[in-house]
Amino acid sequence: MPEHKPLILVTNDDGITSHGIRTLIDLMKQLGNVVVVAPNSPQSGMGHAITISYPLRLYPTDIFPDVPAYECSGTPADCVKLAKHHVLKDRAPDLVVSGINHGSNTSISVLYSGTMSAAIEAAIEGIPAIGFSLNDFSRQPDFNHTHEHVLSITRNVLERGLTKGVALNVNFPSRSSAPLQGIRICRQARAKWQEIFDERRDPHGRRYFWLAGEFINSDPGEDTDEFALSQNYTSVVPCQYDMTAYETMQQMSNWNF
Amino acid sequence: MPEHKPLILVTNDDGITSHGIRTLIDLMKQLGNVVVVAPNSPQSGMGHAITISYPLRLYPTDIFPDVPAYECSGTPADCVKLAKHHVLKDRAPDLVVSGINHGSNTSISVLYSGTMSAAIEAAIEGIPAIGFSLNDFSRQPDFNHTHEHVLSITRNVLERGLTKGVALNVNFPSRSSAPLQGIRICRQARAKWQEIFDERRDPHGRRYFWLAGEFINSDPGEDTDEFALSQNYTSVVPCQYDMTAYETMQQMSNWNF
Repeated sequence: MPEHKPLILVTNDDGITSHGIRTLIDLMKQLGNVVVVAPNSPQSGMGHAITISYPLRLYPTDIFPDVPAYECSGTPADCVKLAKHHVLKDRAPDLVVSGINHGSNTSISVLYSGTMSAAIEAAIEGIPAIGFSLNDFSRQPDFNHTHEHVLSITRNVLERGLTKGVALNVNFPSRSSAPLQGIRICRQARAKWQEIFDERRDPHGRRYFWLAGEFINSDPGEDTDEFALSQNYTSVVPCQYDMTAYETMQQMSNWNF
Repeated sequence: MPEHKPLILVTNDDGITSHGIRTLIDLMKQLGNVVVVAPNSPQSGMGHAITISYPLRLYPTDIFPDVPAYECSGTPADCVKLAKHHVLKDRAPDLVVSGINHGSNTSISVLYSGTMSAAIEAAIEGIPAIGFSLNDFSRQPDFNHTHEHVLSITRNVLERGLTKGVALNVNFPSRSSAPLQGIRICRQARAKWQEIFDERRDPHGRRYFWLAGEFINSDPGEDTDEFALSQNYTSVVPCQYDMTAYETMQQMSNWNF
């Protein structure tokens, strides 16, 4: 734990009024000084999008009476950038936490997830970061069963730090009658969405499509985040922003160009 | 090379009217049957965003007289999903190519890049894929010097395939008086954008910010994409969608929760 009270930046992708971020703010206040910079509208599925073709707005808000907070018109990654380079330009945060997302971000969802893009953005900046997600997509899920694990994982990161370039992707099972089994360090499952496009006609007779689908886990491994969640464990996947496929690099050395 | 003429899906993130996609279509016609599904507006910086809160539009267009083409209201990742599950639902493409992007996508830009998100999306679907980018952000860059390398890299992928879950991130130096030196297999450089937010006032006196900044390469390695480009080589980085930091997983096994 740093000797000074740690400065913790809280953001999310469901927007600044969501229940998940409020839960996370309340928990982080037990561990440090909290500043919030979060999107002013839902940004689910935004992946690692950044806003380069439009200007960004950033306004202070008093919706959390005793916590400095700003709402931003941009994506979660924009929020982290604006926080670091503008709001907190005199003192970089010791930790960035994102969430708690309404809905899980296991497996390849890490690529689509605005929650995790905020954490990865912090990792790029060399700041330890954690994305928290709950496997419950409802607007008012019960977060109570996650509190102890949020605090325990965050305390570990504040005390031990994280490898540079790595952020944690934490997913909680939804509330059930059984208590959580524990916390497991996992790898990202090889699973994917089996998309279905729901084709409809608008009131003007023009065709449109809704992206829908079903999550398919074809990975039998018992060391994956999906497996941990299915067993009522909290999953923790360390994620790196280096996407190089080093083994394939070796294999390609004999290609003829 | 597959025995039948390969079916090649072409997309991009600069939008269907850009010069880069036209160049790529013309080159791919030499190698197979081409279908285009591309965004109807620029999508730069969209990362791996997908459209889940709005419906998608998809319209056929005849702007490429002899090539079936569709313009889509969504992101590059949406285009690949709609192509696979709707436009090409009876026969999956043998290859997905994205680009040629107006601007480089080396190093961590792979995370922000719509060009590469289309390729990664294809990799998730088990389809070999390549993202092509030119280190020239102008609207009408000269692509002529890239043609030979685009064809050579694509032929290699059609003949040899790619490891499942891997897509290639190809970057070309901008046109110069010297011919390209060759093609190098590289890793993603550890570089980042040093952001600066340009603060302005709108005509109503309200503050807004433009995201701007400078690209800083702090990676001294000579095996990186950034180094290859600086030496007038075309860089090829195999990228995987598994973001698990396996070494960190090991290190975390002694954490106390």
